[in-house]
Amino acid sequence: MISKVNLSEKFAQFDDTWSPKVVGELNEAYVKVAKLEGEFVWHRHDREDELFLVMAGHLTIRIADQPDVELDPGEFVIIPRGVEHMPVTDGVVHVVLMEPKTTVNTGNVVNDRTVPTDQWL
Amino acid sequence: MISKVNLSEKFAQFDDTWSPKVVGELNEAYVKVAKLEGEFVWHRHDREDELFLVMAGHLTIRIADQPDVELDPGEFVIIPRGVEHMPVTDGVVHVVLMEPKTTVNTGNVVNDRTVPTDQWL
Repeated sequence: MISKVNLSEKFAQFDDTWSPKVVGELNEAYVKVAKLEGEFVWHRHDREDELFLVMAGHLTIRIADQPDVELDPGEFVIIPRGVEHMPVTDGVVHVVLMEPKTTVNTGNVVNDRTVPTDQWL
Repeated sequence: MISKVNLSEKFAQFDDTWSPKVVGELNEAYVKVAKLEGEFVWHRHDREDELFLVMAGHLTIRIADQPDVELDPGEFVIIPRGVEHMPVTDGVVHVVLMEPKTTVNTGNVVNDRTVPTDQWL
């Protein structure tokens, strides 16, 4: 049975931040939802392009060697593989991520912010 | 330079229906926007899973051998490869699609509704 996913209902089911949850899969990629608050860590994904679509709040993505990208609800950005970036928020942000199943949240960095890649919600 | 995409601005730039426009690419997939109105055609994608995320309006997706999926804004569905489906609307629907670059809008069917796969907006 093919079922729809209501994003608001998914965001209502968790409160932890910087820990993306899988809500769908297609073509060896995952659709994930995450809540972000504060600063993350500078990192890159060597083999994966990553899409950030903001659903609530305001998200800044700092990107190496270029101006920050400022995202409001209904806006997305694609960070190409290999590009160093760091998400930063002022308040809680709800974001949808699209990325290959192999994508680690902290990319090339492994530290206490690193979480499993396949936490289904 | 990495730039963001504002989906509302993209939807404001065209009025034709059933003709997806590319607004981003990642990992050999396209992010597309489309306006849908009325009935499409039954088809399937033999090698591509396809995501429909509704941004405005109400979208019905008829699916072979199961109940229709009814989508409101903020809801998405993933139609797995090989599954016959037909989008139907009552009024104009704004939808974001995520699908491999190879995906033809009419899938296995080629007719007067078939459009090029790589129309950038």
